[in-house]
Amino acid sequence: MQRVIADITTSIDGFVMGPGEQLGRLHDWVFAGRDPEGDPRTAAEGIDAEILTDSFDSRGAVIMGRRVFEFTNGWNDDPPYGVPCFVLTSAPREAYSTANGTSFEFLTEASTAVTRAREAAGDKDVSVMGGARTITSIIDAGLADELHLHIAPRLLGGGIHLFDGISREIAFEITRVEKSPFATHVFYSVT
Amino acid sequence: MQRVIADITTSIDGFVMGPGEQLGRLHDWVFAGRDPEGDPRTAAEGIDAEILTDSFDSRGAVIMGRRVFEFTNGWNDDPPYGVPCFVLTSAPREAYSTANGTSFEFLTEASTAVTRAREAAGDKDVSVMGGARTITSIIDAGLADELHLHIAPRLLGGGIHLFDGISREIAFEITRVEKSPFATHVFYSVT
Repeated sequence: MQRVIADITTSIDGFVMGPGEQLGRLHDWVFAGRDPEGDPRTAAEGIDAEILTDSFDSRGAVIMGRRVFEFTNGWNDDPPYGVPCFVLTSAPREAYSTANGTSFEFLTEASTAVTRAREAAGDKDVSVMGGARTITSIIDAGLADELHLHIAPRLLGGGIHLFDGISREIAFEITRVEKSPFATHVFYSVT
Repeated sequence: MQRVIADITTSIDGFVMGPGEQLGRLHDWVFAGRDPEGDPRTAAEGIDAEILTDSFDSRGAVIMGRRVFEFTNGWNDDPPYGVPCFVLTSAPREAYSTANGTSFEFLTEASTAVTRAREAAGDKDVSVMGGARTITSIIDAGLADELHLHIAPRLLGGGIHLFDGISREIAFEITRVEKSPFATHVFYSVT
């Protein structure tokens, strides 16, 4: 059963970036507390690695916002997705593909992105990987089946807040909870 | 070893009350999903009951804000604390005691409340039970040793936000994570 999964890392106080738009130590769980380098699938450890691998293996398409895409360019034209990626942006550019099976298509509407990603993913899942506005617009529109939060054990006190875009009450079921030294992983499905 | 524990229930998006200052279903974990009535220690079930009982048994004093105290008056002069309670308020009134070992003292300064509560608690813990401003002022001032969050599985999209009062980055260790049908319980200690 194909799922649309909103998947993102936050601080305890719900920030996806700190003041000054710094990521800080939020993603320590992806790199086992070391400085970010290399492939996240080989850098993480323990339950963090298991959760990352499950996520990589189960996804058949990715949705991201323009700013996350711009970070992706930091992967030197060798993005580690290996699946069709759909980028939400107010200024679409021409679609293109890279050598490793990754492709990028640019869309202005969240609902269109979800429809296209569902088709492209086949029987695999659609992973909505951020940023904050992309995640919340898809959740708020009722287009997400699950929310996977990776909560770093720190308060930031400011920055870009994940949940600013939520306009209504939405109930979930808690399906799985895990802890590592670097994060609390809480998986929810929309009820 | 005596601890000052900030202990509060929030939504996934960090609200302690919803729009219109409604509690809604946030505290379902205290009442096993039923309508609130009677003693929380006998209404909760499973891991929720275990966590509540541990909290009641380990605390020797309570700190709360004025508004939580006003809710307390709803307990018909038979508050279920059984320990000295310290109420943070800008308008202190005269201290008083009730029949069951509960007493109320009114203070204007968080640091004074923590000092008095630590003395009154003996070798037991101090529980800071809210509201949002009381919790965050004590955490932000570095006066809390632990943060116990009970996160109801729902987004509210508005209301009174717990973490508005945090002004700096604060790192924690994740010490315990539990799930029930009604809440994710995440216990942190300040590092």
